Amino acid sequence: MSKEARTEIDSLGEFGLIKLLTEKNTSQNESTLKAVGDDAAVIRSGDHLKLLSTDMLLEGVHFDLSYVPLKHLGYKAVVVNLSDIYAMNGRAKQITVSIAISNRFSVEAIEELYSGIYLACSNYGVDLVGGDTSASRQGLVISVSVIGEVEEDKVVYRSGAHENDLLVVSGDLGGAYMGLQLLEREKSVFVDNPDIQPDLDGNDYVLERQLKPEARIDIVDLLNKMEVVPTSMIDISDGLASEVIHLCDQSGLGANVYDEKIPIDPMTYQRARDFELDPGVVALNGGEDYELLFTVKQSDYDKIKGNPNLTVIGHMQNKDAGIQLIAKNGTQHELSAQGWDAFLKQNRS
Amino acid sequence: MSKEARTEIDSLGEFGLIKLLTEKNTSQNESTLKAVGDDAAVIRSGDHLKLLSTDMLLEGVHFDLSYVPLKHLGYKAVVVNLSDIYAMNGRAKQITVSIAISNRFSVEAIEELYSGIYLACSNYGVDLVGGDTSASRQGLVISVSVIGEVEEDKVVYRSGAHENDLLVVSGDLGGAYMGLQLLEREKSVFVDNPDIQPDLDGNDYVLERQLKPEARIDIVDLLNKMEVVPTSMIDISDGLASEVIHLCDQSGLGANVYDEKIPIDPMTYQRARDFELDPGVVALNGGEDYELLFTVKQSDYDKIKGNPNLTVIGHMQNKDAGIQLIAKNGTQHELSAQGWDAFLKQNRS
Repeated sequence: MSKEARTEIDSLGEFGLIKLLTEKNTSQNESTLKAVGDDAAVIRSGDHLKLLSTDMLLEGVHFDLSYVPLKHLGYKAVVVNLSDIYAMNGRAKQITVSIAISNRFSVEAIEELYSGIYLACSNYGVDLVGGDTSASRQGLVISVSVIGEVEEDKVVYRSGAHENDLLVVSGDLGGAYMGLQLLEREKSVFVDNPDIQPDLDGNDYVLERQLKPEARIDIVDLLNKMEVVPTSMIDISDGLASEVIHLCDQSGLGANVYDEKIPIDPMTYQRARDFELDPGVVALNGGEDYELLFTVKQSDYDKIKGNPNLTVIGHMQNKDAGIQLIAKNGTQHELSAQGWDAFLKQNRS
Repeated sequence: MSKEARTEIDSLGEFGLIKLLTEKNTSQNESTLKAVGDDAAVIRSGDHLKLLSTDMLLEGVHFDLSYVPLKHLGYKAVVVNLSDIYAMNGRAKQITVSIAISNRFSVEAIEELYSGIYLACSNYGVDLVGGDTSASRQGLVISVSVIGEVEEDKVVYRSGAHENDLLVVSGDLGGAYMGLQLLEREKSVFVDNPDIQPDLDGNDYVLERQLKPEARIDIVDLLNKMEVVPTSMIDISDGLASEVIHLCDQSGLGANVYDEKIPIDPMTYQRARDFELDPGVVALNGGEDYELLFTVKQSDYDKIKGNPNLTVIGHMQNKDAGIQLIAKNGTQHELSAQGWDAFLKQNRS
């Protein structure tokens, strides 16, 4: 191998690697309507469309079993996949779950994991239809695939936004990230002194955002009831800034995002202050909130205004105007794709 | 945890664990026609059925990169999933591929892996439509999910066999296992003395069976052309004995399997002898051949007889008669579900 070129994966980053691996990808089947590049693949299926998405979670990379209960982990592993289907304006119907486990885990521990998986299936009306169970020499690995459905005139892609469309976000942001910070802090206190009990009282909201997130099927239902079909949509897994950039890139547009409009729960705000973090930065770059970010036509504004679940945070604009974050005092700067991983590294180093 | 019960996973085995985890599983969606328990899940989809299957492969458990080229690994990771769709008499259409990689891998190495994935897609007419890329702290993990299609009157389950149906296998068996034995032997020679070059000449067939298996879409095509719809079918991933038992259990039947009828390639036979293994045992219990095992009505015998790709190895019978392996001299014994993992352990210990 000595004479062959060696390019480090870090030099490309996750998105760069995916782009490199998929840029020559072509489809042979008529039923493949959308392959790589959105929250889910889109497959023609008789009178409707099927949606397909998949995610893999690894112990030590995506979760830390020293503070994540197995039942919560099972629940979250399902929910983060369902979120990808809802981000296409679809409904999740079936999942497969593959796990790899070492003999460190007992049968009871795996039953606990599955109790969370089944609870998510029950809460979201999804069927577990298959999977794979195998040995692992290292930690726990969970891979979930999900199939959803959507009518052809309701499917929403990342690429459909138009200039002047309103940029809307569901719920509030940054909570999952602050929950993670609290859990990491208590873990390090515990490692230093195992006699000290974790002090997590009064932080239920942000802890739940991290440990037991919900996917926003209620927003898909709400939009349907309001007769609003978003022009573009994505779920917020890597952080608001990263997702705004995805919608802009794929729609060939720029955007203005108003800092003061970004919804932040008071507890998230307070915990960020406790950690000497800027709550706005946490809301922009903290990942794993699994809220929906979408665009709607200006003419739909009357339908969504005043709804406590929805916040207009900006609007789309010409590509040449760039993607701008506008501060309360009117200053603006280009939104950067800091993303979840980079943000984590930065804050942990 | 000290007072809680702890049951070891080994005490249940893989099939026991899956049974425990899925025995209370129920479906909420009308479109879920078949959930856990066959080669693929079956989902109603307008005028046809969609099939869904998934598999996860882990370095150090399912493959050894010291002798498996990455391109072959990518190819095989796809093919083993396609095989599950063909085992339902369906056609594979779309796949997702998730990988977890450590920084030990270069971009060029991952491109090599994907060149195998794309080659399999091209050869089998399948589209890569999505996936997930993530960091791994340990080895390489590959999770593939596949979607296929089948007409409702063509889908074949494991459970559909009837008494007196003929038991038929495609191709020949045991080759992949002997390929693995050769590779493992050369690896241990190399570990003992790195100056010795591997001696794999003249073993192309069995090595290819292990390193670059093919899935039998040609058999699905052949049966369709012959107008034969099998009454039950499964792919041979864990070994013939294990798969015969699956068909019998799920169809509520017994079977007679005639030892001398089991197809074994001359090279497989010779290599087994070299290793002082019984070729019949290798063919019965060696896994990863990815041939199809199926049953057909007696009345279809005339359609399949004489075809060089198909061998009748026995017939189904009443459950009370058990699952019998009949030797050439007429002696018979109950076929045991030794399976791939157990066989491996036994032969390596």
